[in-house]
Amino acid sequence: MDLLAQPAVRVFAFWYLLLVVKMLMLIFRTSAARMKTSTFATPEDYAAIGVAPPVDQSGPDERIERLRRALQNDLENILPFFGVGLIYALSGPSLGMARFLFAGFAIARIVHTVTYLRGMQPHRSIAFIAGMVFLCWMLVLALWSVL
Amino acid sequence: MDLLAQPAVRVFAFWYLLLVVKMLMLIFRTSAARMKTSTFATPEDYAAIGVAPPVDQSGPDERIERLRRALQNDLENILPFFGVGLIYALSGPSLGMARFLFAGFAIARIVHTVTYLRGMQPHRSIAFIAGMVFLCWMLVLALWSVL
Amino acid sequence: MDLLAQPAVRVFAFWYLLLVVKMLMLIFRTSAARMKTSTFATPEDYAAIGVAPPVDQSGPDERIERLRRALQNDLENILPFFGVGLIYALSGPSLGMARFLFAGFAIARIVHTVTYLRGMQPHRSIAFIAGMVFLCWMLVLALWSVL
Repeated sequence: MDLLAQPAVRVFAFWYLLLVVKMLMLIFRTSAARMKTSTFATPEDYAAIGVAPPVDQSGPDERIERLRRALQNDLENILPFFGVGLIYALSGPSLGMARFLFAGFAIARIVHTVTYLRGMQPHRSIAFIAGMVFLCWMLVLALWSVL
Repeated sequence: MDLLAQPAVRVFAFWYLLLVVKMLMLIFRTSAARMKTSTFATPEDYAAIGVAPPVDQSGPDERIERLRRALQNDLENILPFFGVGLIYALSGPSLGMARFLFAGFAIARIVHTVTYLRGMQPHRSIAFIAGMVFLCWMLVLALWSVL
Repeated sequence: MDLLAQPAVRVFAFWYLLLVVKMLMLIFRTSAARMKTSTFATPEDYAAIGVAPPVDQSGPDERIERLRRALQNDLENILPFFGVGLIYALSGPSLGMARFLFAGFAIARIVHTVTYLRGMQPHRSIAFIAGMVFLCWMLVLALWSVL
C-alpha cells in the first residue's frame, strides 16, 4: 500500500525530485536573465517595468535562447523519464541496478545542463548520449517487465 | 492496493485532471485561432483548406504565439507537477495541507493562463510566482519524505 | 502492493512505454538530420565537427523544424497522457474498455507522427483529433472516478 516504502520507488523519487530542482533552477535563471537584460516576449512585460520595447528587434537574445533550449531539452528527456523510471521502479528491479540507472541518468542530465550553458562540446553531446543510454536501458527493462 | 482510495492521492488526481482540462482548452483555442485566421505552420495545412500560404510572411501571428507561449509555460510547470504532486501525495501528508497546496497551485496556474491571454501584468507574474511557491513547497516536503 | 499486477495498469504501462519509444525515435531522427545537414543551434556544435556556421542564416531548415514540431506536439499530448492514463487505469476500469482507449490513443499518436513527417493532410488532423477524443474520454472517466 505504501508505495514510497518500496526501496526502488524511493530511490527513483529522490532522483526525479532532484532533476525537477535542476529544471526549476533553469527557469529561475531564465527569468533573472530576462529581468537583467530587459528582454521579454510580450509588450505588457516591458510596460510593467516601465521600459519601451526595443524598436529594432535584432533577433532574440542569445543567452536567453540558450537557457530556453537547455530547458526544452530537459522537457524532452526528464519528463518522459518520470513515466519510464516509475514503471521500471515498480517492476521489482534489483536495488543496486535501480540505484545505478537512476543516478546515472540524473548525473548525465545535470552535466548536460552545465555543459550546455557553458557551450562545452563535445562534452554536452556525450552527456546527452549518456542520458539517452540510461533512459533506453530503463525503457527496455520496463517494457520487458510488462510483456 | 487501491491508490485512489488514499484521500491525498484522490485530491491530487482531481486537481491534476482539472489542470489537464485547462491545457486542452488552450490547445483547442490555438487550433481554433489557426483556422479562423488561416495561420498554419506547414504548407499542407494551407493546401488542405484550399488557401495559398502567405507569400510575405511578416512574422508569426501574435495572437497565436501568445497562446503557444501560455501552453509552453504550462508544459514547464504543470507536467513536472504531476511527479512532484504524486510523490508528495504518496508521502502521507496531512489532508488539509495537501488540499491547500494542490488547490493553491492549480488556481495559480488557471489565473496565470487567464492573465497571460489578456496581457495583464503584473497579475501574470504574481500568478506565476505563486504557482512556483506552491510547487517548491510540495517539492521540499516530498524530498524531505524520501530522504 | 504490486501496482503492475493490476491488469489495467499493466496495459497502460505497455502503451505508454511504446509511445516513449516513438518519441525517442523522433529525437534520434532530429539529431541524425542535424548531423547530416550540418544544421545546429549553437556555434560550439559547428566548431565540434570543424564546420563554419552559415554566414547568411536563411531561416531554419524546414525538415528539422518539421521534426521539432512533431516532437513538440507529442510533448503536448503524450506527456499529459501519462497522468491521465495512469489515474484512469487506477480507477478500476473494465479491462476491455481500458485496452480500447489506450491502444486507440497510442495508434492515433503513431499515425499522427507518420503523417506529420510525410506532410499528409487531412490525415494528420484526423489522427490528432482521434488522439484528443481518446484522451478526453479517459479524462472524463478519470475525473468521474475521483469525484
